[in-house]
This record gives sequence, C-alpha cells and structure tokens, in this order.
Amino acid sequence: MAAPPPTCPRRLLPLSLGLFQGALLLFFAIFVTYDEPSVRAEDANLVANQLYGIFPLFQDIQVMLVVGLGLLLTFLPLYGLSAIAHNFLLLNFSTQWALVLQGLLHHFHHGQVHLDLHNLLTAEFAAVTVLISVGAVLGRTSPCQLLVVATCEVPIYLASEWAIVTRLGVLDVGGTITIHVFSCYFGLGVSKALFGAARQPVHPKETPTPRSDLLSLVGTLILWVFWPSFVAVLCQPGDAQHRAILNTLLAMSASAVTTVVASSLLERDGKLSPGHLQNGSLAGGVAIGAVADMAVPPVAALALGSLSAVACVLGFRFLTPLLARKLALQDQCGIHNLHGLPGILGAAASAVAILVASEDTSGSRFSQVSPVGGNASEAVGGRWGDRGAGRQALCQAAGLAVAIGGSLLAGLLAGAALRLPCLARPPEQLCFDDSLYFNIQDQAESPGPGSTAEEEALALKERV
Amino acid sequence: MAAPPPTCPRRLLPLSLGLFQGALLLFFAIFVTYDEPSVRAEDANLVANQLYGIFPLFQDIQVMLVVGLGLLLTFLPLYGLSAIAHNFLLLNFSTQWALVLQGLLHHFHHGQVHLDLHNLLTAEFAAVTVLISVGAVLGRTSPCQLLVVATCEVPIYLASEWAIVTRLGVLDVGGTITIHVFSCYFGLGVSKALFGAARQPVHPKETPTPRSDLLSLVGTLILWVFWPSFVAVLCQPGDAQHRAILNTLLAMSASAVTTVVASSLLERDGKLSPGHLQNGSLAGGVAIGAVADMAVPPVAALALGSLSAVACVLGFRFLTPLLARKLALQDQCGIHNLHGLPGILGAAASAVAILVASEDTSGSRFSQVSPVGGNASEAVGGRWGDRGAGRQALCQAAGLAVAIGGSLLAGLLAGAALRLPCLARPPEQLCFDDSLYFNIQDQAESPGPGSTAEEEALALKERV
Amino acid sequence: MAAPPPTCPRRLLPLSLGLFQGALLLFFAIFVTYDEPSVRAEDANLVANQLYGIFPLFQDIQVMLVVGLGLLLTFLPLYGLSAIAHNFLLLNFSTQWALVLQGLLHHFHHGQVHLDLHNLLTAEFAAVTVLISVGAVLGRTSPCQLLVVATCEVPIYLASEWAIVTRLGVLDVGGTITIHVFSCYFGLGVSKALFGAARQPVHPKETPTPRSDLLSLVGTLILWVFWPSFVAVLCQPGDAQHRAILNTLLAMSASAVTTVVASSLLERDGKLSPGHLQNGSLAGGVAIGAVADMAVPPVAALALGSLSAVACVLGFRFLTPLLARKLALQDQCGIHNLHGLPGILGAAASAVAILVASEDTSGSRFSQVSPVGGNASEAVGGRWGDRGAGRQALCQAAGLAVAIGGSLLAGLLAGAALRLPCLARPPEQLCFDDSLYFNIQDQAESPGPGSTAEEEALALKERV
Repeated sequence: MAAPPPTCPRRLLPLSLGLFQGALLLFFAIFVTYDEPSVRAEDANLVANQLYGIFPLFQDIQVMLVVGLGLLLTFLPLYGLSAIAHNFLLLNFSTQWALVLQGLLHHFHHGQVHLDLHNLLTAEFAAVTVLISVGAVLGRTSPCQLLVVATCEVPIYLASEWAIVTRLGVLDVGGTITIHVFSCYFGLGVSKALFGAARQPVHPKETPTPRSDLLSLVGTLILWVFWPSFVAVLCQPGDAQHRAILNTLLAMSASAVTTVVASSLLERDGKLSPGHLQNGSLAGGVAIGAVADMAVPPVAALALGSLSAVACVLGFRFLTPLLARKLALQDQCGIHNLHGLPGILGAAASAVAILVASEDTSGSRFSQVSPVGGNASEAVGGRWGDRGAGRQALCQAAGLAVAIGGSLLAGLLAGAALRLPCLARPPEQLCFDDSLYFNIQDQAESPGPGSTAEEEALALKERV
Repeated sequence: MAAPPPTCPRRLLPLSLGLFQGALLLFFAIFVTYDEPSVRAEDANLVANQLYGIFPLFQDIQVMLVVGLGLLLTFLPLYGLSAIAHNFLLLNFSTQWALVLQGLLHHFHHGQVHLDLHNLLTAEFAAVTVLISVGAVLGRTSPCQLLVVATCEVPIYLASEWAIVTRLGVLDVGGTITIHVFSCYFGLGVSKALFGAARQPVHPKETPTPRSDLLSLVGTLILWVFWPSFVAVLCQPGDAQHRAILNTLLAMSASAVTTVVASSLLERDGKLSPGHLQNGSLAGGVAIGAVADMAVPPVAALALGSLSAVACVLGFRFLTPLLARKLALQDQCGIHNLHGLPGILGAAASAVAILVASEDTSGSRFSQVSPVGGNASEAVGGRWGDRGAGRQALCQAAGLAVAIGGSLLAGLLAGAALRLPCLARPPEQLCFDDSLYFNIQDQAESPGPGSTAEEEALALKERV
Repeated sequence: MAAPPPTCPRRLLPLSLGLFQGALLLFFAIFVTYDEPSVRAEDANLVANQLYGIFPLFQDIQVMLVVGLGLLLTFLPLYGLSAIAHNFLLLNFSTQWALVLQGLLHHFHHGQVHLDLHNLLTAEFAAVTVLISVGAVLGRTSPCQLLVVATCEVPIYLASEWAIVTRLGVLDVGGTITIHVFSCYFGLGVSKALFGAARQPVHPKETPTPRSDLLSLVGTLILWVFWPSFVAVLCQPGDAQHRAILNTLLAMSASAVTTVVASSLLERDGKLSPGHLQNGSLAGGVAIGAVADMAVPPVAALALGSLSAVACVLGFRFLTPLLARKLALQDQCGIHNLHGLPGILGAAASAVAILVASEDTSGSRFSQVSPVGGNASEAVGGRWGDRGAGRQALCQAAGLAVAIGGSLLAGLLAGAALRLPCLARPPEQLCFDDSLYFNIQDQAESPGPGSTAEEEALALKERV
C-alpha cells in the first residue's frame, strides 16, 4: 500500500517550526534572563517558600494539559496518537509563542525580561485557549493548520485578556471568561470559516469504541482531579485560595452527579452516554472560575456546578445537532457545550455574586451565614474599589460580550486563513486516521521471514 | 439488536439522584458556610502555609480514588467504562452524603457548619469505605443498588468510626481498622445477603485479558505511589508525619517484592498471576495504617509489608476459592485478601507495637536502637495517657472486633435491602457488560452510507 | 497448549528474591533506625516545612519511575504486563539493595544508620540507573537476569557516583553524567556481552502497534511533566532550585518542538515516528541535568534542549542501525539515543557553562544579561572554590570519561555473568511475550459451559 501524500507540502511543517525555534533562540538570547539571585538569606527563604507554594500547583496544571487533555481527545479510536501528539506540540509551541509576545510587550515597557515560574504559567494559560479551540476541528485539520490557529489565537488572547481584565477590571481568577468563553467562540469561528456552509458527513472513523471512550474518560478524571489547581493557582494565597479550592471541589462534585442524572434522563433506556460523562463532569470547573475566590456561600458553588452540568448535557443532546443542522457548524469535541455554555453561566453567576455580596455587606442581611461581612467587606469591596457593585456587575457582562464578540470575529478570520491553498485540508477519507501523520509500521513489514501464519494473524488483529 | 431493558425501573436512578442533589442544595443553603476570612496578616499566612501542607496530599488522595482505583477495577475486559464511572459516581455521592451527615451531627452540637478542606477530606474517607465494599459485588449489581449500599454504609461508618476512635481511643491514623477492615466485612456482608446461598457460576465475561490486566496494573501502580499521602495526611505535622511516610514507603516496597516471591512460588511454572500483583503490592499500605505514625523501628514496617503481601496472595490462592465453595461467598475483587487479611494483621501489629514501645520506654532496652526514648516516650505515651499500654493494646483489639462485627452485621442488613423488588439485579447474561449501562454506538450505526466493507470489518474489530 | 517451561530454573527467582528479603529484614533490624524525634517545637516546625518542600517532589519522581517509565516500556504490544511489572520489581529491589549498601558504608563510618526521605531518594536514584540500563535488553532477558544486572549495577553506581561527585567534584545536580551516561553505557555493555557477536533478528512481536505506541506515549508525557522535579529535588532550596526548574522546563519544551521538526524531516513523507516522539521529547531533560542549577541564561537551556533532541532523533535514525550492523549491538529501547548522546551533550555543556560563567564574572562582560554577577559569583564561584574554572571544566570532562569507561567495562562484566548456565535466556520464539512470565487465562478456560459461539469469538478477539 503506497503511503498517501500528506496534505500540506511535505516540508512545510518542519521548516516553519524549525524557523520558529531559531527565532525563539534569538529572542531569548537577546531579551530574556532569569531574576538576579537573592542576596539576603531571608529573601532566599522567601523564594523557596513561594516555590513550594506554586510549584505543586504548576505541576498539576501540566499534568492536566499534557496527560489529561491529551487522553480526553483520544475518543476517536484511530486518531489517538495524533490527538495526543498534536495537543502536546500545540501546548509547547503556543507557550513559547506566548512567552515571546509577552516578552516583547514587557520589553518595550520595562526593558529586560526576567523569566520566572509565574511568566511560564501565564504563557501556558495562553496556550490553553489554543488547545480548547482546536477541539472544534479535531481530526479534520493538519498540524500546519493547527499551528496557524495557534499563531493567530495567542496574540488575540493576550489582547483580549488585557482588555477584559486590565481595562474592564473583570474579576475572573479561574479564566471562565478570558479562557473558556474566549477559546470556545474562537474555535467555533475557525470551524465555521474553515468548513463553510458544507455540512460534514458522519465519518466512519469518528465513532468512539468502548476502549477509546475508556481512555478518554481517564483523561476526564485526570482533569477533574487537578482542576482546583488550575482555578486557584493565581489566587491570592491564604483565604481566597482556600475558598477557590473548596468552591471548585464542590462545583465539580455537583457536576459529576448531575451529569449522571441529566444523561440518564435524556438518553434512551436510562443509560448513560460516555460523551456526556466525559464532558459534563468538568462543566462545573469551567463555570466556577469567575466566582471561585469570591465570598459566595458553598451552596452557590454546588448550584453552579449542577446547572452547568445540565447545560452541558442539554447542549450535547439538542444544541449541537441543531447548530449542525441549521448553521452547518462543526464542533467535533463539543467545546460549545463544555466551555461555551458553562462559561456564560459562570460569567452570569459572577455578576449575580457581586450584586448579592454588596447587598449582604451593606444590609448585613446574611452576615452570619456568609463570610462576607467584617473585614471581608473590605477585602471584597476593595477589589472593585469605589466603582460600586452594580458597575462591577456590568463590567462582568461587558467582559463576557467582549470575549464572545472578539473571539468569534477573530476566529472567523483565522479560519479563513486556514483555507489558504498551501494549507490544504486532509482528504476526507484520511481524516481521523493516525496513518496520515505517523509512520506506523505495517504488518506487512514487521513479521520477519520466519513468522508463521498464526503470528501474522495475531499481528493483524493487534493492528487496531 | 433491541436494547435490553435496564434492570431497575428506568428512571429510578436519575430521579433518586436528582432528589438527593436537591436536598443537598437545601441543606447547604441552610447550614453550611465557609470559615470567616482571617483578620490578621499572620493568620492569613498561617492559612496559606497549612493549605500548602495539606493540599498536595489531598490531591494525591483524589488521584488515588478517582484514577487509581478506577483503573484498578478495569480488569473486567468488557466492563471498564462502567467500573470507572460507577466508582466516580459513588465517590461523589458518598462524599456529599457524608458531608450532610457530618454537618447534621456537627450542627446539633455546635450550630453553623464551617466547611474546610479537612471536612472534605474526612467525608472522602467515608466514601472510601463504600468504594472498597462494592468491590465484592462488582459487575453483578446495578448503579441503584450501589447507591443503596452507599446510603447505608456512610452513616454506619461514621458511627463505627466514632465508636472506635472517639470512644475506644483506638490509634489508627491510616484507617487500617476503621476504613479497610470495616469496609471489607461490610462488603462481604452485602455480598452474602445479596447472593444468598446460590454460588455464582463463572461468567464468560469476567476473565481478564492481558490488555485489561495491564490497565488494572497501572491503577495499582498509581495507588501504590500515592498511598503514603493517604496514610500520612491526617498525621500530626512534623516527625510523626515524616515517620508515617517512611513506614508506608518501606511497607509498600516490601509488599511489592514479596508479592512476586509468593505469587511465583504458588502459581504453576513459577509464573506470576496478574491479580496477585495488582493486589498484593498494595497489601502493605493497608496493614501499615494503624502503626504508621508510631515509634516502630523501620524493620517492623518492612516485616509487616512482607507478611501482609504473603497473606494477600495466600488469600487469593486458597481462601477465596474456599469461601466460595463452602460459604458460597462471592468476592469479585478479592477485597478480603487486600483489605481484610492485611487489615487484621495491621491491627494486631498495632497492639504489639504499643506493648513493645511501652516496654522499651520503661526498660530502655532498645533506647539506642529505637527512637522511642527521651521525649518520644512522652509523645507516644501521651497518646494513651494514663491508660497504660496493656489497656491500649486491648483497645486496639476491641476496635478490630467492633469493626468486624458491626460491619458484617450492617452489611448483611444492607445486602438484604438490595433484594427489594424495585432494585432488581442485572440479568446474568448482561453482567460484566458495559452495554447495559452505556449507550455504546453500534457498528451498525456508525459507518456512513459510503463506508466500504473493509471499514466495516475494521469497525467490527475495534468494537472490543 | 502446554505451558512452555520458563527459562530459569522454576524456583530460582522466588527463592533468591525471598532470601534477599530475609537478609534485608535482618540488616534493617540490626542497623537502621529513624531519626530521633525533634525535642523543641521549632525543630518540629522545621521538619514539617522540610517535608512539605521535598515530599511533593519525591512523589513526582515516584510517579515518573513507576507509572511513567512503566508505560513508556509498553511499546512492545504483547509484552506490556511484563515490562511494567519487571520495571516495578526492579525499582523496589534496587532501592532496597541500595539502602543496604549505603547503610553498610555509612555504618562503618558513623555507626547507626538513620533513615529519612533523603536516604530513600538517593537509593531510588541508584535504582534509576538499573531501570535505564535494562532498556537495552528489554524483552530478551528473564527476571532473574534482570536481578543480576541490578545486583551488579547498584554497587558500581555508588562507587562511580562517589568517584565522580565526591572525589572529582563534578557538578551534576540532575544526574546527567552520574545517572544517565553511566546507566546507558552500562546497559550497552551488558547487551554486548550478553548477545555477543550474533545479530538478533527482527522479532515478529517487537513491532509496536498504534495502541501500544499510544500507551507508551502517555508514559513519555508523564515523564515529561514531572522531569523538573527529578532534576531539582536535590538542589539547594531557593534560587538554585527555582533556576533548575525553569531550565528544565525550557529544555524540555524545546526538545518537544525540535523532535517534531527533526523526525518530520528525516522520516518519509514528512510523517512522524512514534518512537522519535516518545524519546526525543525527553532528551532535553537528560541533557540539562548537569547545568540546571548553574547561572546559565535561559537561551542556553533552550539551545541544549533543541540540540539534544536533534541528537536523539539522529541517533535513532542512523546510529542505532549502524551500531547494530557494525557491532551487532542490540539496544531495544534506544537508550543510547535518549540517555547516551544527550548525556554527553549535557556534560559538554556543563564544562562550557563553567568556563563562560567564570569569564563573565571576572570580565563582567555580560553582567547585565546573565545573572552571574554580584553575589552570584560568590555562590557559583564558591562551588568550585579556589580550584579555578578551567580546572573545574576539566573535572567535568574527567567525570564523563570515568562514567563512560567505568560503566562500559562493568557492564561487559555484568553481561558476561548473565550468560551463566543457570540464567538461561528465554527462547527466541517466546521473547517479547507476556505469556512466558504471567499466567494468562486462556480463552479455552474462561468461557463457561453455557457460553455461546458468539461469546467465544468475542473472547478470542479480546485476547490481544
């Protein structure tokens, strides 16, 4: 069997990536250093303690993105290697690209760039948006196209994050609006522009098998376990961080149980859908990000987790087919259900929480029940200063609007770029197939001359 | 092929779970808040440091229960999705249920319930007992039945834990008696009452394949790696915690090597049994819990690890078949070998360690060799106060007796409840099969109209 | 089908392992205790804080070695269980053996051995060398032979580490020279001596399948994520540790991207080779170890990561086939490409970094750009004291030479020991096959009398 030609010109991927690595080296050589080592012993101690505080959370996030998300994407039974490898490549490329852009921005304002774990973390957060967005077009796009998406999305994310957090002052410690909602609509824009009005037929290789669903579910569980680290890593250490962890744990626990309820009610015979479980269990984590460190009572976290799981499952059951039918919108991983809908819910919840918290503080209605009161009013009030709670709530809504509008528009443009002739899409019959991107040894090659018919049959069976 | 009807009335699972989620929200809304934020900067620092101390261990435990235990249960080749998903659902449901019960108990004594990471951790420990117990009936029970087990077991665990630790003053930092022994005999009771005197035939789908054994072994290894966190998380920070970690590491290392020895000696041709390795490697972790933070010498941890691995492998080889033949006792995962026998060994070891430590302290016989001596005598002696070592050792034995007797009785009652007509067991031919609980897309559905015969054959092969 | 006889005398493995466990217990009983508990509260606090600093890193390393490395070795599709289990057994055996040897050495100098987490960690590092070395002979050696390798390699590693680090004063915080280079050439020596001049034919079972490649890639990703902990765990807390983590992160990120570039350029049709990705992504972590905590600029870490990935991929593509053809050198996992070549690069980089750093400090040429300057010169200079940078760079080279020469020679001797008649190698047709070491239930056994033909067909298909 002759190997089919890859879709992009053969050397486009390595040459462009290689060029980028060269530029990265140059940029780092000129602009980037580490912090000066601490002079005094107390400072060194402080560095050590800060490191012990942040590093375990950083590692948790790395596990989520590299192992958890990678495995989650292996639900396509013949595309597991590609899904994991492309996810891994995109994470590294996007992080490096974000470091360059952040560094340039910083350089023009402050001169020398001092790299530390915190920079790396924010660069990785930029990369997360890419990993989420490409879920919409998983399996029907070449690595070259994915790199173009990353190249476009990272700067737009940085701009959007600046507009939303720095300019509008939106509170969003867990990235509900800036990461999840943004990347969802960016990805949908890319998908729409790339596939146009043609509805993609069901592909014979895109149906999960029990085995691929199992690995994918393991990915979900890894994400589920470490999600509190993702939400809490940038929180103020101390009470706020503790609260963010607890809120996330509660929201995700409610999501897990509610997903089972919703899926079981909606599916035939009261069975579960593996896809619902893989996504719905995480919906609470997406939604809680914007309110995680606010002084909301625990019940709010539970309710938000439940609601977002319901929204996610309903989205898979009704909205995704509807969008595919009416708008010919392709969303392979269902990112709209996992990141879009729960993200919007979370943004709305943050506005409500701000309004309620302010009422509590002024009226002291629930000052016994909720920890908002006493010095908490200062702490929380101080965050939106003299702007007033009503205005802050409006800002949250405005931030949501900017995230949706900006990302959709930018995604449409980026998707249009993917239709450039030099970035040809993989041919339909080779979509969702690892053999397009990996040199997989054929059974014809592997059995040596002495192999028996039995062994060949064995090898044949294993191939899959 | 018409989908077979699920065993419980179709909507029983989602309706009861949904009702529970509603009640949970109500309970949290009325009774539960977070701690007041710290007023002073030093307090905030303390919170941050405590968080950095406990949170990594908490995450380790989450990985164990969600990913490690889930994977361990995938040794049934066609039941992997169900095993992982039911484990995940039960963990969340039981933790929430334990939070409600703990909260109610606390509320009647102290008013408002303040939720923190420590509460969540103890609730999760209650959930662990459920996850262990249902191992005895894995694959032959419906999710509804599993929820009934959880509903019964969590309050009984809380009562038993109160009786054993609070009333009897049993020392058991790693849950050897309160968690492992308790849940083992509860599970065996459930199994006995559920299946009665009818011996279950060997089911064609319950034989592991090399591939399912591999995933299950990965689960074992995840549990093995993080077990020290499970044992040490509730220890006194400092020396005791350090000692608990070291003792657990030693015990588990000895278990791993001894399991290979024992399995290889007992199996034909000197080969290994995957099941022995999956369970025996963890036996040391079960046994060490009761003595982990005591001032035992390192050799004791090694010896206990070795002994418990031998007990576990012997149990699999001889005791489980014997119990199945004589008592028609069904123990699908062999929880008696992994949790029962090593747990009893660990309880016995704790009594011996207390007696020996007291002798050392008074006679100073080994004061050079063992760290019991000097201030350690105070530290250790202080734990059973003026009660005397002999009495404390008796208490350990009494605790073991309470754990076994209480849980067996309660398990038998809970198992009887599972025979209620509304909780019909899955029919025999559909046991150990994911298709009973998951909507798995048939190959007949998936290939589109344009699919070739080759692709259909491919899809057929992948199904498994 | 009659079970084939295992290659070693049936009871050799359990008897020798059991004997070793007995001796271990004896040794621990006589010589090993824990530290005396802290008397003062401040000391106890210090113990707790040190524990919180090191324990998460220790757990990360355990995950790497047990889960990550285990999975990485499952690329042989029918040998996954054996690869994971032998890796696990070897890790435990070698750690225990290293504890005994370290303990004996310490005992003769200082009396009583006080076990703590740090001892365990260094013992585990000794075990790592064994796990790496046996990669060269994976699948063609029995567990007895592997234990002989471990028995020989651990003492030689301890001697070599003493010579290189203590005597020569080589700087190598991440084990580039002492662990990776050493174990690579030891393993190659074993392979050469074991297989002699006979070139091994391609075995029908040694070709990876997409599924086994996928699991193996997951292992790579786990190693990739936690590698910074491995490199940084023994660093000075504070700035040096922070720098080591950052350098490792940068090097591994560059490795990941560069591997894709190199593999895609070298393979036909611009596709990727799974093996390149599985190994090349980690090459940066191997190389960075010797310079990780030095005051090198970030660009050096990136460049080293890229270079070592290129070396690794080139090694797989050209050097391994060449060595197999010319020297009949068997290297099943390609350890020379992952550990040998990047290790040599890293050692060279450390010599260069020392020379450059010293020039910077004296000439202050780059004192703005690089953090070497001010007190850093003391910190860094202090490490090689009055010896001078030139001499220290020479020492690095000498250390490399000792590691390569010593390990190759010792490996050849150890490999010769593997040819002892009592340690017969597995017969060729049973290599790379789990059924030689595991009692895998045949499909003939499993289906009960009532099983249908359909179920038997199903069971047959699953077998693989």
